[in-house]
Amino acid sequence: MPVTTDELIDKAAGAKAASIVLAQATTDLKNRALLAMANAIRAREHEILAANAQDCANASPRIEIDRLRLTSDRIAGMARDVEAVARLADPVGEQFDKVTRPNGLAISKRRVPLGVVGVVYESRPNVTSDIAAICVKTGNAVVLRGGSEALESNRAIAAAVHAGLHDVGLPESAVQLINSTDRALVQRMLKLREYVDVIIPRGGAGLIKATIENATIAVIETGAGVCHTYVDRAADEGMAVGIVYNAKVRRPTICNALDTLLVHRDIAESWLPKLAVEWNKAGVQMRADAEASRVLTDAGAASVPAVTGDFGKEFLSLVAAVKIVGSLDEALQHIRTYGSGHSEAIVTEDREAASRFLNEVDAAAVFVNASTQFTDGGEFGLGTEVGISTQKLHARGPMGLRELTTYKWVIEGNGQVRA
Amino acid sequence: MPVTTDELIDKAAGAKAASIVLAQATTDLKNRALLAMANAIRAREHEILAANAQDCANASPRIEIDRLRLTSDRIAGMARDVEAVARLADPVGEQFDKVTRPNGLAISKRRVPLGVVGVVYESRPNVTSDIAAICVKTGNAVVLRGGSEALESNRAIAAAVHAGLHDVGLPESAVQLINSTDRALVQRMLKLREYVDVIIPRGGAGLIKATIENATIAVIETGAGVCHTYVDRAADEGMAVGIVYNAKVRRPTICNALDTLLVHRDIAESWLPKLAVEWNKAGVQMRADAEASRVLTDAGAASVPAVTGDFGKEFLSLVAAVKIVGSLDEALQHIRTYGSGHSEAIVTEDREAASRFLNEVDAAAVFVNASTQFTDGGEFGLGTEVGISTQKLHARGPMGLRELTTYKWVIEGNGQVRA
Repeated sequence: MPVTTDELIDKAAGAKAASIVLAQATTDLKNRALLAMANAIRAREHEILAANAQDCANASPRIEIDRLRLTSDRIAGMARDVEAVARLADPVGEQFDKVTRPNGLAISKRRVPLGVVGVVYESRPNVTSDIAAICVKTGNAVVLRGGSEALESNRAIAAAVHAGLHDVGLPESAVQLINSTDRALVQRMLKLREYVDVIIPRGGAGLIKATIENATIAVIETGAGVCHTYVDRAADEGMAVGIVYNAKVRRPTICNALDTLLVHRDIAESWLPKLAVEWNKAGVQMRADAEASRVLTDAGAASVPAVTGDFGKEFLSLVAAVKIVGSLDEALQHIRTYGSGHSEAIVTEDREAASRFLNEVDAAAVFVNASTQFTDGGEFGLGTEVGISTQKLHARGPMGLRELTTYKWVIEGNGQVRA
Repeated sequence: MPVTTDELIDKAAGAKAASIVLAQATTDLKNRALLAMANAIRAREHEILAANAQDCANASPRIEIDRLRLTSDRIAGMARDVEAVARLADPVGEQFDKVTRPNGLAISKRRVPLGVVGVVYESRPNVTSDIAAICVKTGNAVVLRGGSEALESNRAIAAAVHAGLHDVGLPESAVQLINSTDRALVQRMLKLREYVDVIIPRGGAGLIKATIENATIAVIETGAGVCHTYVDRAADEGMAVGIVYNAKVRRPTICNALDTLLVHRDIAESWLPKLAVEWNKAGVQMRADAEASRVLTDAGAASVPAVTGDFGKEFLSLVAAVKIVGSLDEALQHIRTYGSGHSEAIVTEDREAASRFLNEVDAAAVFVNASTQFTDGGEFGLGTEVGISTQKLHARGPMGLRELTTYKWVIEGNGQVRA
């Protein structure tokens, strides 16, 4: 049954109304809602699996079916993830930057929910329960628009989420699912400024670009990462192999994976062949610039010539561009030109080089002597993450619960008027 | 001489390049630049006055000439304001949220400039030096697009700013003035995502709306305020007269001025006539709902009937809408419907009512027993302000220097790889 524009607006307006209730909900009530949601997900395992089977049967051959398919284990994992959010600290209500002014006004900031969060996402159905849990925990209502290939799965998961909200007496309209394949409807959703406070696209570069170009609601860009690791002349060679190997191979399909390796000329002949042995075992294809090609060929290691577009490309696979640079400055300039502001690393024992890299690289996360794959809410100690922001406003890098809140200024006086 | 699109892009690209230098500038160097800018403004007083005289002569009759006109005193004030920014603490480089993870990674956030700030503003030429100073202090480059009625004044002020930057060896391209009356050029500027990190419109509701609808760059909305003061049944009557008088009359033309007065029915007959006497002396026109009209008429006080649109209107003049409500809940509902999320106040001696108001009103600034005219960077202790944000992302309410920065995650390891 197609969703109409009127239904979209009704749902967004419903979320706005529910957000007023959510914003006042106690931490205890919100946590009880999350536990009830987890229980409902477990109780409805068969319905969710049946719905998912329908989606898998309908899936176009283009779809990575493994991202779409749910199993008993995955559903149990979804329930555990919701429970894990219940155990995190609630940022709402925190008071900070407190000051008493000379005129006696007591001024502080109080952390409050954003209001209504819109999320546009792709295939994985577990995102539905993840985002619902994080939004409920932070007192936000949410309008979810999942991928068209997961319609039935998302419907079944949303029903479990609603059952959980209902169990504790919170409005089911706090979590709205726009279950539609109609792109015009998403376009409309991106302009519902009256009801939605922020839009978060979770998915590929195309989704993010379309969101930015069409939204009048404020957008938080997440995800797209063109990540460099620069192996300096003063790198510890063994450490550099370990870090660069991990940055590419551990999970090549995620946004914090290495895309381009930059190697200082002074270390290239000695070090690059050692890396090539390890990367080769893992099946990494090296797309090398002319100089790196020569070094690799001389060492008997395979590579293919880099072509236009390989530098600045997010590969999301076992492919890496490789370039030899003559100096730290050349590496910095390369990153400035081709980086996407996500995660950038230097491997060096030279404190001066490390310090310049940390100062001068403009990215959400800058690393010395560690793998860029650490850019992650869990690894950074946030407990969970909504996404990794690659923009500069509001939040940068991994976004946890606090990043789904804002603040209001609270001013208490006893009759003060301004002179 | 009209500015072409190519020139616009050159200037934006120049600002981006300069932002790399500005981001690394020491506090001392930035402060010396500000002092040199202030000196240059003073030294060029005659040129600036001559340019301003030209603008005033060219001004259309629609323009409030007093907002446009500069005097020796005003120019001296501009120079002093720039010097005052030099004396504020530099937020850039602050380290916070520091943590060492179990795997030994040392993680912290470091405050850094946003990069390139775009500002689109109207008439007052002093905004040119104000914003330039605040951006230089925070290590940001800036692209300024001032009002078409202040072209010559802005050109002369920008020349002084450039002289100051030049004196200390900072790139003049850090402050770019797009001196054009071409609206299509502004449209283009709002989409220069490659070079500009944030756009701040400073001006009326029309300018803000046009910016939001056309920008693909992230926008910080500032300024528009539909502000309510609710006089509760438990208000101290004398205090309420003082606060409500100040909130409207002190400066009626600013965004934190009272637009709508809500009065609890139980106090209306006794209190509203007292306020009317004071407001009447100041020439405030009351646009009253039916019940308030009756109360005022019975007391022999003048009012005019409120018409559709008066509630929810930003008057920016000595006009106020007045409504009688039966309860705190009705006041909260009215503010929810008509408020713009700027500044809202309650006057009451009832702690419970005050607490509910602070909790339930969703606005940048919520007040108990004080005038909404206090919503201001200086009054809140920020030293200065770039504007008052009425959006929820990044910064809410008065924005000081810190609000023109972002952070990056800095991760220092000794060879850590992710499991």
